Amino acid sequence: MKTIIGLVFLMFICVEINAQEALTAEQSDPAKLGWMQGFPPPKDKIISAIDGSFFRFPALRYSVCHMRQFMPTTEVNAATTNRYEFKVTLDRNIDTLTFLPWNSSEPQTWKESLAKNYTDGILILHKGKIVYERYFGELKPDGVHAAMSVSKTFTGTLGALLVEQGVLDENKTGADYIPELKNSAFGDATIRQILDMTTGLKYSEDYSDPNAEIWAFSAAGNPFPKSSSYDGPTNYYDYLVTVQKEGVHGEVFGYKTINTDVMGWIISRVTGKSISELLSERIWKPLGTHVDGYFQVDGAGIAFVGGGFSANMRDMAMFGEMIRKNGKFNKQQILPPSLVEDIMNGGNQEAFNQSVYSTSLRNWSYRNMWWITHNEHGAFAARGVHGQTIYIDPLAEMVIVRFASYPEAKNSKIDPTSLPAYHAIAKYLISK
Amino acid sequence: MKTIIGLVFLMFICVEINAQEALTAEQSDPAKLGWMQGFPPPKDKIISAIDGSFFRFPALRYSVCHMRQFMPTTEVNAATTNRYEFKVTLDRNIDTLTFLPWNSSEPQTWKESLAKNYTDGILILHKGKIVYERYFGELKPDGVHAAMSVSKTFTGTLGALLVEQGVLDENKTGADYIPELKNSAFGDATIRQILDMTTGLKYSEDYSDPNAEIWAFSAAGNPFPKSSSYDGPTNYYDYLVTVQKEGVHGEVFGYKTINTDVMGWIISRVTGKSISELLSERIWKPLGTHVDGYFQVDGAGIAFVGGGFSANMRDMAMFGEMIRKNGKFNKQQILPPSLVEDIMNGGNQEAFNQSVYSTSLRNWSYRNMWWITHNEHGAFAARGVHGQTIYIDPLAEMVIVRFASYPEAKNSKIDPTSLPAYHAIAKYLISK
Repeated sequence: MKTIIGLVFLMFICVEINAQEALTAEQSDPAKLGWMQGFPPPKDKIISAIDGSFFRFPALRYSVCHMRQFMPTTEVNAATTNRYEFKVTLDRNIDTLTFLPWNSSEPQTWKESLAKNYTDGILILHKGKIVYERYFGELKPDGVHAAMSVSKTFTGTLGALLVEQGVLDENKTGADYIPELKNSAFGDATIRQILDMTTGLKYSEDYSDPNAEIWAFSAAGNPFPKSSSYDGPTNYYDYLVTVQKEGVHGEVFGYKTINTDVMGWIISRVTGKSISELLSERIWKPLGTHVDGYFQVDGAGIAFVGGGFSANMRDMAMFGEMIRKNGKFNKQQILPPSLVEDIMNGGNQEAFNQSVYSTSLRNWSYRNMWWITHNEHGAFAARGVHGQTIYIDPLAEMVIVRFASYPEAKNSKIDPTSLPAYHAIAKYLISK
Repeated sequence: MKTIIGLVFLMFICVEINAQEALTAEQSDPAKLGWMQGFPPPKDKIISAIDGSFFRFPALRYSVCHMRQFMPTTEVNAATTNRYEFKVTLDRNIDTLTFLPWNSSEPQTWKESLAKNYTDGILILHKGKIVYERYFGELKPDGVHAAMSVSKTFTGTLGALLVEQGVLDENKTGADYIPELKNSAFGDATIRQILDMTTGLKYSEDYSDPNAEIWAFSAAGNPFPKSSSYDGPTNYYDYLVTVQKEGVHGEVFGYKTINTDVMGWIISRVTGKSISELLSERIWKPLGTHVDGYFQVDGAGIAFVGGGFSANMRDMAMFGEMIRKNGKFNKQQILPPSLVEDIMNGGNQEAFNQSVYSTSLRNWSYRNMWWITHNEHGAFAARGVHGQTIYIDPLAEMVIVRFASYPEAKNSKIDPTSLPAYHAIAKYLISK
């Protein structure tokens, strides 16, 4: 039962579909499949958060653009004044640019890669101007898309901002700020370890294991009615105090969502504001965004900051460009340059290479909930399952935002046809 | 169980609180009571749609501004271009204007009436300019508020628009447009009878009766998981086909929410669009509204058009002013003047006087889901429980929008200190 409750609204579920056997992007187009269309929709076209059907491919391709049709949410208000308007100078050459996918000797065009990756939306900024912008499937220019774990990057950036401002001391511990965390794994974990996910946690995100802790976390955050036999925690925070330590903090990068949720809790405790409010006030409004974003919430109104954000693509691009411009955007210094410098300097590569990413993303690092490639362009990214990303290439003065609904959750399936494609575009833009 | 399921998300529940014994507006201020405040909120400050606590006074005073924090919703997108900006010329005299509440010999000031009515927001337009605008409790200028049955007026207006355009024939029946309705009470009810709620329906909205049909309707539309023993309809439309006839259509006004929901279904069937989409395209965007509104939805994504709309106060005022100006607003003819004329001419007063409103609202009528006062100013209104209204006084060139969270649902408790107050303001504005 716990598993079912968790499954219901888990945002980054590992869908057990082999993409090789799945419908293609064109075949799985939501408009073609007719999810939730008709008055009323036919019974077999109704998808729901209750039975988890909304998060199974290909229904997922519809749901990612309509998360709040299935779940309670809270606003991240966009700007109401000083809205930013991008300049657009489309580059017709990009579609035919080619790159070599990882582990392949067959060049692929950029345009081909979009369908291969079940892209719902993609936008490329070069020197701050839109040079490429496409919408597929269910995504509309004025709509939103689930950001999945790109959500983490916003919480991490807000946490790092508070460190820069001296509101948080990165050497203090979770328990220093939230006494309730004292007996949990976060009790003696420092803010820095939490921000960089080098905490040692007894916490498995192995979805194939019914006893994995992820299910208990998900059940706690599930906003729908619990079964009468359920006696576990009833919101995210009540779950976080139960997390136990495993190993030593500070040594190994362990990509675990609950670090973000505990970071969100600490931020809210010290500022007295929810992450939704803070993200709106400090970032979304100053950027001049156009479309309200939103977080899914648990039964206590607490946002799922580890994965529950949905936002508009151009608004996401504003955020990426602001970071690329060292915190300055829309005629304001929104974040201090030192914060961006800290992200770009990266995290502990040694700790990263001891993680499960040691092969696929060798020599990368993780800092303030950003992924740092340490490649020759100094590229870094926000990344979420099913293909979500904000990819920033400082040398190429390029920002890419991608929303996608790839049949499988793991980015390891998507990276081979996306990361080399981004790098190829970057090299092309430099050469222009 | 059916009752509990229904109770959960019912939007126009008759809260059994005697306002005389309730906390005052000041005492029940949500910020003071701390609903959903804190990280996490204290257990006794957590309110929820699941147990119905979000809709009980005084928690209701918080929830009305945050409905989507508790329930799945669907957008009514605001304008993204040509946004309308009101001119503001505040009139300082309004607060001290006095009126005589119904059945009272003690004059009350306008300002006093606001607290008496648990006003969350109130806005007065005179000749299109804002002359009065106040926000109380949880409502913020850029926020939204539950419109309750004011929602009906939007569906009714869209239905009447389709009649004006010849898309719907007001003499055809529900079954002519939706064959599935053939064996229901709506099968032989005309579009006109549905729009004016003169249908004869075996349908009770008596909340004190556990067998009242309202509970079955609510259970069907409840987006949360049903109990395993539940075998009733699982969305609004599947319920509507089960409604049985009682009496004769066309003779008596019977204010029953399901007329609106069936009207919404008919509109969607003939246009191929949801009410959310249509309201946005045909009205909300042309008006130049600023804030996305939203409808709560059932498990099939169908909006609760009979009562589930939430919107921004200034945006509501734009709608009211557009109607007052015979359909023209923001430099566009948004609705045909003939439609507004049809509303203002009113409905069948004889049918109205045979309803439960024959005493309290003697000689009023109901047309296209608007309430027509037939007073000497020709005033007419959209009305929702707990004190929601858009009140239009053509002679005074006045539009009032009120959002409120009165402890009791019934407007009969609120009318004595609001309707005479509106009329007093109208007379003052005429005399200015």
